[in-house]
Amino acid sequence: MGSSMETVRFPAEVLLGTGARIFQAAGAPAETARVVASALVEANLKGHDSHGVLRIPQYLDRIRKGQIKPAAQPRIQGERGATALVSGEWGFGQLAGIAATDEAVRRAQEYGVSAVGVVRCNHLGRVGAYVEQAAAKDCAAMVWVGGLGTRPAVPHGGSRSALGTNPISAGFPVQGEHPVVLDYATTAIAVGKIMVARDAGKPLPPGVMIDKNGRPSTDPEVFYKEGALLPFGGHKGYSLSVIAELLGQALTGADRYQDAGTAEEVFRHAGALIVAIHAGAFRPAEEAKAVARRLVTRLRMVPPAQGVESVLTPGEPEARTMRQRTASGIELAGETWRSILAAAESVGVPPRDLPSPGDLPAE
Amino acid sequence: MGSSMETVRFPAEVLLGTGARIFQAAGAPAETARVVASALVEANLKGHDSHGVLRIPQYLDRIRKGQIKPAAQPRIQGERGATALVSGEWGFGQLAGIAATDEAVRRAQEYGVSAVGVVRCNHLGRVGAYVEQAAAKDCAAMVWVGGLGTRPAVPHGGSRSALGTNPISAGFPVQGEHPVVLDYATTAIAVGKIMVARDAGKPLPPGVMIDKNGRPSTDPEVFYKEGALLPFGGHKGYSLSVIAELLGQALTGADRYQDAGTAEEVFRHAGALIVAIHAGAFRPAEEAKAVARRLVTRLRMVPPAQGVESVLTPGEPEARTMRQRTASGIELAGETWRSILAAAESVGVPPRDLPSPGDLPAE
Repeated sequence: MGSSMETVRFPAEVLLGTGARIFQAAGAPAETARVVASALVEANLKGHDSHGVLRIPQYLDRIRKGQIKPAAQPRIQGERGATALVSGEWGFGQLAGIAATDEAVRRAQEYGVSAVGVVRCNHLGRVGAYVEQAAAKDCAAMVWVGGLGTRPAVPHGGSRSALGTNPISAGFPVQGEHPVVLDYATTAIAVGKIMVARDAGKPLPPGVMIDKNGRPSTDPEVFYKEGALLPFGGHKGYSLSVIAELLGQALTGADRYQDAGTAEEVFRHAGALIVAIHAGAFRPAEEAKAVARRLVTRLRMVPPAQGVESVLTPGEPEARTMRQRTASGIELAGETWRSILAAAESVGVPPRDLPSPGDLPAE
Repeated sequence: MGSSMETVRFPAEVLLGTGARIFQAAGAPAETARVVASALVEANLKGHDSHGVLRIPQYLDRIRKGQIKPAAQPRIQGERGATALVSGEWGFGQLAGIAATDEAVRRAQEYGVSAVGVVRCNHLGRVGAYVEQAAAKDCAAMVWVGGLGTRPAVPHGGSRSALGTNPISAGFPVQGEHPVVLDYATTAIAVGKIMVARDAGKPLPPGVMIDKNGRPSTDPEVFYKEGALLPFGGHKGYSLSVIAELLGQALTGADRYQDAGTAEEVFRHAGALIVAIHAGAFRPAEEAKAVARRLVTRLRMVPPAQGVESVLTPGEPEARTMRQRTASGIELAGETWRSILAAAESVGVPPRDLPSPGDLPAE
C-alpha cells in the first residue's frame, strides 16, 4: 500500500468474497451471505458507493441488535391474480427485494403486468438493482418505497419534514445494451451527498435544505441539527414522494405490522411496491426493445450543452462506471476498509484471513 | 356583460351544454359530444384552462382536417391476462382515455393490477382525469404519455430538443375526500404558461428554457423561434420523461401505425400506458384509503414556509378550484368565448342558439 492508507483498491470479486465471508460469520447462510455481498459490491461497481460495502459494518451492527435476522428467508405472505405480497421476515432487504422481483417477473410473464408488495424487509439496498433484474428478463419495472418515517423530507411549501427520502426507480430493457434505469431519492439531494460535503468542508447547493426554523441553508452541519431536505423539482418531486409513500406503505400494509418492534425505527413501517410489465405485453418484446434502442441513440445524438461532454441516457453513468471499475477495481476510503476489518474481527474473522490491499497497486 | 368583453362567466352546465351542442353539430354522436364537452369543462373547473373549452375551436379544426374522426368509437385491439390495448380509432382522445381506464379498472378488480395501452388516440386531454376515474373505483393508477415527437423538451445536458412534453399522472384514493393526484408535464414549465407569459409581456423564470443555440433564455418569444424547454428537476425529471416515452410508445407499439397519415403530426405515433392497482390488492381497500387519509392530514399539519398559506396535498389545488368554480362559474377570456362562437357558427350553430354571457353578472 505504501505510506498512505487514504484509499485502497480491490477487484470486485475480492470484495465479494470478503463480504460473503463476513456475513456468513455473522450468521447468514452461505447463499444469503453471497447474495447480500454481491448486491453491495454491485452498488460499488455502479458508482453508488453509499449503498456499497461501506454498509457491511452497519449491517453487522443491525444483526447484533436483532434488527436484521441474518438467516431469515423471504416468503410469499399472500397472492391474488397478478399480485403478491412478499415478507422479508426482517432478514436482509436485498433477499426480499430479489425474491419480490423474481415473483413480479414471473407474474408479468404470465399476466403481462404484475404488482408485488414488499414488507418487513429492512434496507432494500440500491432499488435500481431490481429494475435491472426485471429488465434482464425483458420486463419494464418500477419500484416505489414509502413509510420510512417523517424525516428528512419537507413537503413542498412546508417548513418541517414529514416524509422519508422515498426513493423511486423505473427501468426499461434496451436491445443489445444496458437498460434505461432511473433510480433516485425524491429529495433534492441524497443524504450521502451531505456527508460528503460535510467531510470536504464544502457548502451544499442552494435550494436543497432548510434549517430547523424552516429557513434556507447551505451549511451541511445544519442538516444534523434538525435540518430537513426539500423535494427535487418543487411540487413535482414532492408529489412523487407522496405517491411513493402511498404505494410503498398504505397500499402494501407496511404500516400495520406489530412484530416490527425489533427492527430499526426507520424500517419498521416501510414497504415497497414493485410493478413489472412484460416488454412483450403489446407487441413482440424484441420490437419494444429495438424501439428503446432507437430512442437511446436519438438522445445520445443531441448536441451537448456548453461544458457537457455528451447527453447520457438514464442508467448510462452507472453502466460507464461499472465498465471502468470492473476493469480497474473498486476504490475505498482507508477509513471504510478499516471499519470493514473491525466488523470482520467482531464476528471472529481475523484480518490475516482477509485480503490485503498491499497485494494490489493503489493508483 | 357591461362594456368590456375582457372576461365572461358561465355556470359549468351551460358550457357543457354548449360544447356538446357544437361537437354534435360537428358530427359527433350525442353521447360522444357530451363526454368530450364534459371532459373539457371539468378541466376548466379544476383550473386547467389550457385543457378546457378553449380547445373546442382546435378540435373542430382537427375534425375539419380529418385528423379527429368525430364518430369513431374506441375498441379493444388486443388483450392478454391483466393487459389490454385500446385503439382510439383516431376519434376523440377523451373517449379512448375513458374506455382504457374503464378497462384498466375492470382488470385491476379481477387481477389486482392491470396495464392498458392506448394508441391511435389524438389528444387525451387532462390525463389526471383518468387517475381520478380510477380512484373513484378504489384504484391507484398512473398514466405515462410518450411518442409526442421531438419537440419541445431537451434531454438533460443537451442543447436541442429531442422529446415531447411527455406528461405523467399518478393517483391514489383517499377515504372521505378527493384522491391524491399528480398530473404534470415532465418539462420545467408547461407550454400553456409560456403563452400566458408572452401575452402578459412577462419574462419566464430562469432555468426553464434555452434558445435555438442552446443558450439559457427567459424571453417567451424565444420559445417560438426554435426555443426548447428543459426538464423539471434536472436529470431526475429528464429520466421520468424517458420512461414515459418508453412506456407510452415503445411498449404500446404506438410508433408502428401506418394509418396515422391523417392524424395531426404530434399525435401520429403517440401513445399512453395506464397502470391501475386495486387499493384492496394487499389489504382491505378501506384500510388503504384510511391510511392515505392519515397521510394527507399529516402533510396538511406541517407548518407552512414563510409566505405560504398552507401545505397542500397533490390534487388539492384542483379540488379547491373545483369547489370555487362549481359555485361561482367558469370565467373565460372574451377572446376565447368569441372563438367558440365562431367555431359554433362554422358547424351551423348560430350565436342566437348559444347562451349569452349577458344573462349572468360578470364579477
